[in-house]
This record gives sequence, C-alpha cells and structure tokens, in this order.
Amino acid sequence: MRRALIVVLPLFALATLMVAGPGCQSRNGGAGGTSADIQTLMKERNLSEDDVVAALKTYTPSGVHDEYYIFASGGHSGQVIVIGAPSMRILKYIAVFTPEPWQGYGYGDQTTTLLRSGDRDGKELNWADTHHPALSETGGDYDGQYLFINDKANARVAVISLRDFTTKQIVYSNLLRSDHGATFVTPDTDYVVEGGQYPVPLGGEYAPIEDFQEKYRSAVLFWKFDRDKGRIVPEKSFAIELPPYMQDLADAGKLASDGWVFLNSFDTEMAYGGNAEGRPPLESGASQNDMDYLHVINWRQAEKVVADGKFETIAGTRVIRLPTAIAEGLLHFVGEPKSPHGVDVTPDGRELVVAGKLDTHATVYSFDKIKALIDAKKYAGTDPFGVPILPFEESIRGQAEIGLGPLHTQFDDAGNAYTSLFIESAAAKWSLKDLKVIEKIPVHYNIGHILAAEGDTIHPDGRYLVAMNKWALDRFSDVGPLLPQNFQLIDIAGDKMQLLADLPIPLGEPHYSQMIKADKIKAITAYTPVGIDPITDEPDPFRVVGGQEGIERKADGVHVRMTAVRSHFTPDTVRVKKDDVVHLHITNVEQAEDATHGFSIAEYNINLSLEPGEHANVTFKADRSGVFPFYCTEFCSALHLEMAGYLLVEP
Amino acid sequence: MRRALIVVLPLFALATLMVAGPGCQSRNGGAGGTSADIQTLMKERNLSEDDVVAALKTYTPSGVHDEYYIFASGGHSGQVIVIGAPSMRILKYIAVFTPEPWQGYGYGDQTTTLLRSGDRDGKELNWADTHHPALSETGGDYDGQYLFINDKANARVAVISLRDFTTKQIVYSNLLRSDHGATFVTPDTDYVVEGGQYPVPLGGEYAPIEDFQEKYRSAVLFWKFDRDKGRIVPEKSFAIELPPYMQDLADAGKLASDGWVFLNSFDTEMAYGGNAEGRPPLESGASQNDMDYLHVINWRQAEKVVADGKFETIAGTRVIRLPTAIAEGLLHFVGEPKSPHGVDVTPDGRELVVAGKLDTHATVYSFDKIKALIDAKKYAGTDPFGVPILPFEESIRGQAEIGLGPLHTQFDDAGNAYTSLFIESAAAKWSLKDLKVIEKIPVHYNIGHILAAEGDTIHPDGRYLVAMNKWALDRFSDVGPLLPQNFQLIDIAGDKMQLLADLPIPLGEPHYSQMIKADKIKAITAYTPVGIDPITDEPDPFRVVGGQEGIERKADGVHVRMTAVRSHFTPDTVRVKKDDVVHLHITNVEQAEDATHGFSIAEYNINLSLEPGEHANVTFKADRSGVFPFYCTEFCSALHLEMAGYLLVEP
Repeated sequence: MRRALIVVLPLFALATLMVAGPGCQSRNGGAGGTSADIQTLMKERNLSEDDVVAALKTYTPSGVHDEYYIFASGGHSGQVIVIGAPSMRILKYIAVFTPEPWQGYGYGDQTTTLLRSGDRDGKELNWADTHHPALSETGGDYDGQYLFINDKANARVAVISLRDFTTKQIVYSNLLRSDHGATFVTPDTDYVVEGGQYPVPLGGEYAPIEDFQEKYRSAVLFWKFDRDKGRIVPEKSFAIELPPYMQDLADAGKLASDGWVFLNSFDTEMAYGGNAEGRPPLESGASQNDMDYLHVINWRQAEKVVADGKFETIAGTRVIRLPTAIAEGLLHFVGEPKSPHGVDVTPDGRELVVAGKLDTHATVYSFDKIKALIDAKKYAGTDPFGVPILPFEESIRGQAEIGLGPLHTQFDDAGNAYTSLFIESAAAKWSLKDLKVIEKIPVHYNIGHILAAEGDTIHPDGRYLVAMNKWALDRFSDVGPLLPQNFQLIDIAGDKMQLLADLPIPLGEPHYSQMIKADKIKAITAYTPVGIDPITDEPDPFRVVGGQEGIERKADGVHVRMTAVRSHFTPDTVRVKKDDVVHLHITNVEQAEDATHGFSIAEYNINLSLEPGEHANVTFKADRSGVFPFYCTEFCSALHLEMAGYLLVEP
Repeated sequence: MRRALIVVLPLFALATLMVAGPGCQSRNGGAGGTSADIQTLMKERNLSEDDVVAALKTYTPSGVHDEYYIFASGGHSGQVIVIGAPSMRILKYIAVFTPEPWQGYGYGDQTTTLLRSGDRDGKELNWADTHHPALSETGGDYDGQYLFINDKANARVAVISLRDFTTKQIVYSNLLRSDHGATFVTPDTDYVVEGGQYPVPLGGEYAPIEDFQEKYRSAVLFWKFDRDKGRIVPEKSFAIELPPYMQDLADAGKLASDGWVFLNSFDTEMAYGGNAEGRPPLESGASQNDMDYLHVINWRQAEKVVADGKFETIAGTRVIRLPTAIAEGLLHFVGEPKSPHGVDVTPDGRELVVAGKLDTHATVYSFDKIKALIDAKKYAGTDPFGVPILPFEESIRGQAEIGLGPLHTQFDDAGNAYTSLFIESAAAKWSLKDLKVIEKIPVHYNIGHILAAEGDTIHPDGRYLVAMNKWALDRFSDVGPLLPQNFQLIDIAGDKMQLLADLPIPLGEPHYSQMIKADKIKAITAYTPVGIDPITDEPDPFRVVGGQEGIERKADGVHVRMTAVRSHFTPDTVRVKKDDVVHLHITNVEQAEDATHGFSIAEYNINLSLEPGEHANVTFKADRSGVFPFYCTEFCSALHLEMAGYLLVEP
C-alpha cells in the first residue's frame, strides 16, 4: 500500500526551512534552534508535492479553530458526530438515541426519561440507525441553532440544540416502523420531514404480507417545529399517506420551489421478498421496473387541507389519506430512472437532480415544468392507487451522463454539481449549465453520500466537498475485521479538485452529513443560572445551592441534596438503609469553562456528567447493603482522586 | 484565540511549489495544473514556519498507514480508543464495558452474555471508567497480541484481542469495589495487576465507616493470564491484602527488578471524608502527611506463598492476608512525598520515578538500594499494620526539581525522562543521569498522563511523546459545555521538543495510553472458517451454511437459520406467532475484507454487526404482534437498501 513515487521539482528543492532562526519567534513550544529541510522531510516521509499542498491546506495549528463544522449521522451507533474542517478532527460524539456514560446520557434520571420517551410500545429502545442530519434553516440558509436527526431502524426523530450540543427531544409516530427520507427541513424550519422506508400496515397492526398492496402503506410526516420553544409539537404535526412503495430520500423545495417537498422511491414493483418461499429477494424483486416514482408534494397545500379538517387521526397522528391527497392535488408522481438514491434541489430551487444507482445518468427536473404540468393537469396516467403521473420527458430539462452508480448530488456557488459514484468510487463534477462532466476525482472506496460546504442551502459556498466512503479496505492501519469508514476532504475552490485528507470514522457508519460555517454556531460554556436541567433548559426544581446541602428522609425515600465543586462533594458521606429509595439531587455549582464533574457510584450503574451549572437527579433503590465508593469521574483538578465519598447501605 | 504572528524568512519565501508541473505525476486525484505558493498558503492560513514543519511531520497521505498505534482508555465512556500516529486520527473505538450498537456489542446473544458476565451481585453494569490500558508484553517489550483495561468504577478487568480488536473477557473479584493501579502487566504477561483504590470491607459486606481502620482494607490482585488461551484464569489468580490506604498507580519491575511490582498510595492518614458530619473532606483529610508509602511487592515470592497454601479464600479469591505478606517478606513500604500520582520503572528496571502532585520533585528510587535494604532487613520502622518501612534517604538516588504538579513519567532511548506537570501545564524533559531539567514544553491545558512511543517497555524508542491534557478550554471550535480532552503530539527525536499536533478526543476522557509500533500488530480481516463466534474464537454450534437455511419450530421456540450475503438475507420472510421465543442464527458467509453486514429488527432493540465469516445468535420473545422490517444496517452494496425482509408476528 505504500507509495513508491517521490516527486521533487528543482525549484522546490531549494526551499530550506530554517525554523526559528534569528528574529523568528516560535509558537509551538520552543522549537527554536531546530532546522529542517522541506526536501528532507518530504523524502523521510515520502511526501509528494501534492501532499505538501494538502498538508498546508489542512494542518490546523494548536489552538486555531476550524472554519467549518461537519455534522454527520453516526449510523447504527445511534449518535451524531461533530467534525471540524479543514482539520478533519472529530470534536464530539453527541449522544442521541444510545446511552453514553461519558455524557452521563441514560445513566441519570433526566436523560433516562428522555431516552425512555423514545421507547415504542413499551419496548426499551437503546440504539438507532441515524441517517440524515438536518441543520435548522432560516430563509433557506443554515442558522446554526438546531440539528435534527432520524432513526431509520425505529422511525424516530430527535432534536438537538446547538447551544449546548445536547439532545432535547425524541418523537415518533406509530404510522411508521422505519424511515429513510428523514430528516429534511423546510426553508424556515417550519417542518421537519420524515419519509418512511419499508411499508407496514398503517398504525402498527398485523396484516399478512400477502396483503401488501391492499393493507401496507407508507407515509411522510411533517413534524411542526416551534423554534421559540426549540421543540417539535406533535399535535401540530401531520402526515400524508403514501402507496406501499419504499420511499427513499427527500429534499425540501426552496426559493422557486418553496412550499414543496420531493421524495423519491424504489420498489414500485411492490415486491416484499420471500426468497425461501419461492419469491425473489427484494434486491431483484424491487429492480424490475425501468422507472420508479419521484413524489412531488405540495406541503403548503397539505397544511391547508389539514387546517380544513380533511384528515383522519391514525395512531395519534393527523393523516391526510391517499384519496384526499390526490383529490386535493397535493401529491403527484413523475417517473424517475430505476431505484434512485438521491433527490437534491438546486440552490436556486428551480431544478431537482435525481441520480439512479442502476442508471448512469443524473436526471435534471425543472420545477417550472413540473408546476406547469400540475397546473395544467397534464398527466401521463395514474399509478395503481390513482396518483397522477406527470409525463417524464416534459418534466425534465435533460440528463447528464455521469458514470457508474451515481447516488447523491451537491452544489457549489458557480453552477456546478457534484455527484457521488458508488460503483466507480469517484466523485464527478459537472456543469448544471450544459450537463457535461467537467472532472472526476477517484475516492477510496465506494462513496455513498457526498456533502459540500453549506451544500443544502441557497448559498453553497464552493469551498470543500467531502466524500463519505463506505468501504475503507487498505486505507488505514489494521483494526480487525470491522473497518472504519473513510471521509475524504476535497478542495473544490480551484479549477481542479484536490484530495486533501482522509478521516477514518472510528465509531458508527455515517450516512449523511452537513457542513456549516463555524461562525454561525454560538455554544455556551456553562449553564446559567446555576442549577439548570439541560433537557428542559429550565432551572431544576431540586437544584441545590451551596450551603443548603443535606440529607432528609421523606415519605418517598431519602433525598440527598448535594453540590459538586473542585474538589469535593458535599455531603461526602451518605448513609441509607437497605431497600431505601434514594433521590440524589446534585448541582455542579461551578461556572468556569470546562469545570465538568462526573458522579459515579460503584456497582449501581450510575454515572452523571455535570457540566458547569448543571443539575442532575438520580433515583435508585439501595437494594444491596455494603459500602459503595462514589467519586468524580472527571480529572477535574490535581486532587481529583480525592473528590470522592462513601455511600453506606446498612443491612 | 487566533494568532497574529506571521513568520516568513526570506529564503523560505523563494519556495514556489509547482504542483504537478511537467513530468510531475500526481497521486491525489489529478491535481495536475494547480499551482500553489507555499508562502501564499502560509499567509492564507496564517501558518508559521514551525507549523509547516509540524504539518509535514504529521500529514499522512491518503492510503498511507501510520507508524504507531496509540491505545487510550476511554475514561467513563467504558471503551478503548485506537489512534494512529503521527496522523493523530482515531481509527476505532473498541466496545468493552458499555453496549455499543455499531459493533452490535450488547445487542445480540454472545456479546450480551459477555457484558452480563461483568455484572456484579446481580446488578446490570452497562458502563465503566476505564483508566490504564496495558499491552501484553514478551520479555518486557510490547508484543501486539493483547490489550488489558480496567474499570475503576466497578473494579473490573477486560481482555481484548488485537487479532480482531474485540473484547473477549471481563473479570472481577468481590475483594474490590474500585481499582486504580490497573491494568499493568509483568514483563512476560504472566500476571495482569489490579490494585484497588477506595478501601471497603474485604469481601463486600457492610461495616460502619467509623471502623475504617479496623475493617476496611484494600488489595492488589494478580490475574493469571493464559496466553495460549488468550484468557485470564481466575482460579489461578491471587491477591495480597493491603492496609486501608488509597492505593494509586502501579508499575511492574523489569530486567533488574523483574519479579517485583510497585504501587504508590495516598491517604495514609486513613481519612474517609465526612464534610457534613464534622470531618474534613478527603481532599484535605488525605493531604496531611508529608509522606505516603510506596508499596514494594515481591510477586514471585507471593506466587510461592500461594503455592505453599498460605492463603485464605475470600469472596472466591485466594488472598495472602496482610500478616502473612509481612511475615513472608513480600511487602515493604518506602516513604514517598505526599499524595503521589505516578510510579514509573525506568527501561533498565534499575530505578523507579515517583512524582508527587503536591511536591515539585520527581523522586528517583534505586531498586538495588531497596533490594539491599530488604535483604538486610534495615527498616526505619513499621506502619500501623506492621508493614516494614525502608529508610527513605537510603532508598533513593536523588530528587529532580521538576515544577508544579508533577504526575507521571515516561522515558526515551537516550536516558531522559519526561514528566507531566498538571498545574504548570507543561511537560518537562530531564536527564536521568544528573536529575536536571533539560527543557520544558507548554501544553494546553492541565496535562494528566503522558506517554512515549514504546514508553513502558525495556526499549522506548524516543520518537514521540503525547500529552494527555484534561482541559481543552479554547483550543477547539465550541461544542457546548462538555469539552473534549486535548492530546498533543510532541516530537522528541530532535534536540528540542516540538509540538506537532492537537487531537480533540470526541468521546470519553482517556486517562492513560500506550503507543506501540504499528508493525507489531497483525489483525485479521475476516473470520475463517465461516461461522466463527468472535467471543469464543470458535466455530459457533449454530453456524449456518449457505443452502442449509431454514425455519424450524422446536420445543424451545422457533429457530431461524439465516445467511447474509450481498445483498440479501435468506430467508427474508420470517413468520412467527405472538409470544414465540425466536432464536435467530445468522452467519455472514462472506470472506471479503470489509464485507460487514448489519442486522436490525425494527422496535425489537436488536442490532448485530456481522463481520465477514462471523456468526451471531440472537434470542427474543416476539411479544408484540405486527409487521417488523429487518434490514442490513451497513451500506454494503449499491443495493443495500434492498437487503431487507419482514418479521411477521401473527396475533
């Protein structure tokens, strides 16, 4: 795997880097006196000149902040990954659907209650398959306030605040058991879109699979977001029933197409597997038709239809039934080449790019044409459920011949599109003007999604592209049979694309990411005033003020009011009796940045992460007698080992 | 936070980098034609000349492997972090004590059984506070075969195989409720050392805390490792009872000191907190004495004592009681300055460096002197429990004046030591020869442990140092109140130390790490033959061969024999009745590198990660009727969305 090529141009060989010579001040810890020769370093480390450029374009010195954040889904880790660019350093894993003890997430009362609010039908769900993060938008641009993320496996949506990078809410509807076209937001974040994936009987009951066409359905949910509260409002949300195709990705219209949402689909064959029962597996059963259906949805019209009461409530969700959707003219189909993956609206909102993984083209639809066809009710026919189908040839502007396995498309600020090519392991840059490929760059390997800086907004900025490669193979040092994915950062600011850096993803299989300018995000460093519950963002009723700590036996158990400050808990001796219910109320009374305290009790499966100003509650039954040390799990001071105490459970 | 300084030397300004000019072949995806000027790049990105050198020393081009692995504990994430150096990219989080769905860890039968084997007293433990990873050694050098890691919070030890980077075993003894001097290995990995932290009544029963001196004890466990089996053998392991001090870190002797283990301690005051009951908190109560005790343990002698039957079995563990340990001459104390943190044996095994966080010195003990004093039974006295104390002044060679808050020490190949300075936020390089500080490098901020390449072996290689900084403060883009730690890579190969790169740790608070040459690790890419259970490393009795899939109702439930291969499961329709117990047996029959398949069932909290050749079982009660899609959670092929099926649970 090592490269044999060494490229040193004569001019370059002249460059001698005298580090910290006379008059040179050094920042990096006193390297004064060291001298290094660029050519020597290049030879020693077998670096090409491209490598040197890439190194200088990505190296981010100590203490310098990144220009962009990348928010990536964590796949079946159930979390969200925050990455800095161009350094490509992972800054944080945000716990969302999976318990995570470093963040105390799911190991104390408030976070456990939040996690349990995502349980379905009484079943504890402690993981998710996160796919598509969506940054909140204002006027079609990322505003840096909120992040939404779906759970494909269990059809759920979570809300994360970027004020404290903390999960605030998990919602779901029993209409769906899986989702894929989620999450995508409308241009002012009025709605968070969740499109289903694998059809099931609407509402969750059983029906024989042989009744697939009659009784199985999909749906697209429009979760109403209340920006002031920072929460989704389920009772103001609604859904549209869809035929039992497997809906795939979604994108919201913007500018010219504001008010519309587009979903693509596969398995319009309505195959449902059965390879041990004489039917074809989905992979072939769902790949018979040459064309599937792009779903064109007028959500503003749907909003009115719901306001007019033309809905049914199913499984607690307001649902526009399919006949209503058709009758009200809010759902249309257009043919799209065989089993597509991505539908991406151009920055001006005037066009949609659909790439079909079993087709070598990217198809460019004109929203104006689609709209005109809808207004004129000019249909090529209807699907088996009566949904009107617009004529394909009259809906598109053209098709670009891209390459093998095109999936997803992003945009820059100069009228170019970038499409991932899974089978070809490449990213293609092509012109939206003439639909011709300008350049391809190989990636390693098997790219799924692709993302561009500010790429889903009305102002993509044309700076960087990231290839999200599903297979890593030989790219990194061996880590056993389960390999990381490989994110590759590509510079698209110049005439030619240049690969800058590889980033292995050490946990989770991200599906999609968004990249936002770093200066849009303003996070807090402490909760103020002291005693905030980070889930509600409100002062906790049990918050503890320094000097008012204590232990009190009440009707519902023993209440321990505790504070944490470097380097002690008060009280640090807690005496209870076996089988007491213990309510610990702990406030980190510090306000200093980074002054986090942990709190764990041996063998009680409890661990909290108390950020500065945070209050947490934890309730447990002291069901085993004995002596149980508790301590601060953060290295908070030189005396962190001494920040400890004893829980004494008398028999 | 941005730097204002731009340093460009005249000579350097001459360097113009013509990328991919005539005759220049480009590897990085066809950057041919781009030209860039180093000076321009430096100006654009505000890079100093030190930065350029650092960039070229760390930039690792696409597809190039790292020279070193760093294995870091994940703190209270409960996991282990694998990092490549010098690129400082995180390659993997290994699931150890905490369920992790991307790896399917704790979401299927085998891994759940492993996790549950670490439960204590019937209490489910789903997290840990991992502190000190230890690579297996042969002859005092890392051999790249196994990794051990402790759980401070619940006193457990795990075994990880570096053949597949998978956790194989979790062990614990009820002697301890917390540990800290763990894990450390003897030079041939005969034993894995686990020293306790917070004393409790030996064996786990209750005793009033006022009986601390009489009834509370600590212990050091010697877990016997069977290298052929790759597992710890609890019944061949033993412990030594220790006084109720808070034992801290440990290190095993090597070469000259082979056969010995050293532990330091704090709280020889035997304070136990009580700040709401009129007693001082531990932070002051445990910081009264000027000297605590370095514990000097002859483990080969202890091994003989156990073989001679001079032990008691307590809580299932063979324990050398304290009076026996004293009588048999296997436990001695030496004074050590106030509440030390690290005890580190020099590469030649002849000396020990102890750094006291409340003292500005590193104290260098001579093992020869200690051994001579022991042999001559020359004691300065005994502690309250009768443990002989060697005279401090006669045990040491000297003390190095290091700086504020010295904690841990590592070594290079040239007779130098490197000590972390927590309060000073610096790393000090000093000479073992004359005990004088040579150089200090500032780090950001509040360094805890420090690690050097091959740093705990008899052959440290003097290449790199990593500062593990506990506070990050302003170093990285904002990610809310909970900040990452900052690892800083330092080049120590030259005369002067140079800071090369900052690495934020996005999940977990690592306490210690070890760094091993990458070519020592030989990981597999697939399990062979097909059908291996990765926990036992044996073919699973339920493994499924292609063509022999099926569904069978037996006395204990419905057995589903399933295979996974791109891009389908067989069978893909599974029909059961409500309340059936379902036994899924799934084999990934692929052998291709990176051909991992996931397997999840909606709303049943099940997710597997099936690496090539892996077999997994998962048992569940189909306690809810309905239609539940299952699918492959890996993006395994262009048709990955079609790798799905239905679990049909008839009412």
